[in-house]
Parts: sequence; C-alpha cells; structure tokens
Amino acid sequence: MATLEFFYDFVSPYSYLASNRVEAIAARTGATLRWRPFLLGGVFKATGNHAPIENPAKGTHMLVDLDRWSKRLGVPLRFPTNFPFASILALRTAFAAEAAGSLVPYTHAVYRAAWADGRDVSTPEGLAGVLNGVGLDGAALVAAAPNYKEALVKQTQEAIDRGAFGAPLFFVGAEMFIGNDRLDFVEEALRGA
Amino acid sequence: MATLEFFYDFVSPYSYLASNRVEAIAARTGATLRWRPFLLGGVFKATGNHAPIENPAKGTHMLVDLDRWSKRLGVPLRFPTNFPFASILALRTAFAAEAAGSLVPYTHAVYRAAWADGRDVSTPEGLAGVLNGVGLDGAALVAAAPNYKEALVKQTQEAIDRGAFGAPLFFVGAEMFIGNDRLDFVEEALRGA
Repeated sequence: MATLEFFYDFVSPYSYLASNRVEAIAARTGATLRWRPFLLGGVFKATGNHAPIENPAKGTHMLVDLDRWSKRLGVPLRFPTNFPFASILALRTAFAAEAAGSLVPYTHAVYRAAWADGRDVSTPEGLAGVLNGVGLDGAALVAAAPNYKEALVKQTQEAIDRGAFGAPLFFVGAEMFIGNDRLDFVEEALRGA
Repeated sequence: MATLEFFYDFVSPYSYLASNRVEAIAARTGATLRWRPFLLGGVFKATGNHAPIENPAKGTHMLVDLDRWSKRLGVPLRFPTNFPFASILALRTAFAAEAAGSLVPYTHAVYRAAWADGRDVSTPEGLAGVLNGVGLDGAALVAAAPNYKEALVKQTQEAIDRGAFGAPLFFVGAEMFIGNDRLDFVEEALRGA
C-alpha cells in the first residue's frame, strides 16, 4: 500500500489549502497518509530560498492566487493580519498532539483558526484556547511543546536532506512534489505506486 | 470577445510548455490570442525576484517537475546544455517576425529548437539557421532585430507595470495569472469573460 507523506507548516497558506485535500486523495487512492509538521523557516534558511511574501510583486499576487484557490476548493481563507506569524509553538505542540493520538484534528483546528477564523495561534494562550474549543486539552498539549524541540528540528532536517525548498511538500516513496498545485501529480503517483 | 495575452521569454521552460497549450485554450474558449515576447531577466531585475535555477534545491527539482509536465502534456523537452542561454536576440527578432506577420510560427520554431532539439538560438548564425529550417527568412529577420530594442524594453516594462514577477504571464483583461500551472484558471476566466 502506498504512503503519502505530507510535510506542512501552519504559516504556509498553500499548506492550509493542501490540508483540506490530502485526506480525500488518500481515500481515493487507498494510500496511507502521514502528517508531518516541519519548520518552513528552517527550510528557507538551509536552502537560501525565500517566502513568496518577501517579494512585493509576488506577495501582492499571492493574495489574488490564494483567493482563486479558496473559491475553487470551497475552502474559506482569510489572510491573517499577523502574517507571517510565528508557527514554531504550534509546530512543537503538533508533536505533543501526535503523541496523544490527535495530530489530525489538531492540525485541522490550528489551520482553521489561523486561516479561516482570524485567530492568533502563535501564543500559548491563543493556541490553548483554539484547542480547547475543539475538545482537545489545550493547556496540557501546549505545556508539553518544549519536549518536542528536537523532534521538530529532526523532521525539518529530514525534509531538507530529501530535497525540500518549500511547502507544502509531499513524498510518494522517493518521489518529491512541492506545492498545493502539484497534488494532481501526487494523486497520479499514488495510483501508479 | 475575450483576449488572452501571453507574455513569454524563450529562456523560460514553463513558457515553452505554455506555448504548446495556449492556442487550444483560445480555440476552446473563442478567445483572441496575443503573443507578447518579453525579457524575463528584465522582470527579475525590476522586481528582485529570482529564476528558480538560481536556487540549487529548487533548480534540481525543477528538472523533475518539467519532466512530469513534459510527459503529461506530450510535449518533448530536453533541458538545454547552455541554459540559461541569452534570449535577447531571439526576443528582439520576434518583433521583426511580428512585423512580418510570422510571430506564431517564429515562436514555435524557436521554442522547439531550444527546448526539444538542443539547438543554440542565442547567436545570429544559430537563430537564422533555425528560422531558415522552417521556411522563414532567417538572415532578414535577424538583421532587423536591432530595430526592436525599444519595443522589447517597452513590452517588458508594460508587464512589470501590470504586476509581472515571472513567466509565463497571462492576462485576461485586468486579471493576471503567472505560471504554466495556472492555465486552468486562465481558461476559467476566459469562459467567464
């Protein structure tokens, strides 16, 4: 059975879009889905690549492009006023959620809060409030975040070592794909795998 | 009737892919197609954006991604050994071809030579040879190229002023689209226009 690895960072809007698509793709292809949070800033630092928002012309157009994708996919998207917000706490806490068996609902809750509901997930209070709102134990998860500093570094480094330069990042075996706009290629690879 | 403006540079592989798709899209949607050569290097310089090939991780993956697109579209693509070759002569000559009423066959001939047949289109001799091979008057067109320096600068500046940061670049009215991977959005816009 094929496995789809999905590397994502909460600060990446195109990863948010992809987070709303990967489960259906895995279901359609019979693939096992692995949710793998990683630090996109670490990838940019290691590779010398830059976030689109850092270029004015690119950043301006990204808002237009995101709006088109949001409408096509029917995924609500409101660009956060605090973008690019610090996602490192939410990423470390994702590993705590994974250890507690709740990485998938955690991921959807954080993405929805940050990218649809205009909430701040960069602070312990903000993040815990979001998690409590979906029935997760916000205080306990956030408190455990510091235990996963190394796990996040390691997962990020693995992605870099495998060729990452952006997000969302997908692997089907050794085949790498980058971008929400490459999910059709991902699905083809899963069907062929 | 809607108009599809297609801005392209011969050095851009994703523009080459798009050059093999835009005519069918215009035909399907009843749109008028405008072929608009521009200098991608000028766009990068003006906007501070960079060619993908300049980043090692991105450049490596681009070859993989281009191969996937080539297979999907059935468009032959052999990455040029002299990439990134100087495209400015071929771009200026494109305006000469336009004045002679042969911009479309000119464009296809130059793209095919550079991106499928491994030929050098950066020199007067190389370019003229390619043009002669498809029944165009290579010597006359290349000789006229210096007359179109300003036209190329002007067309490039227009694209920059309208928000360009890369290629291929498309406009449907005021709506801008960037990337071969956005042609489905372009087609939707043409249907709605």
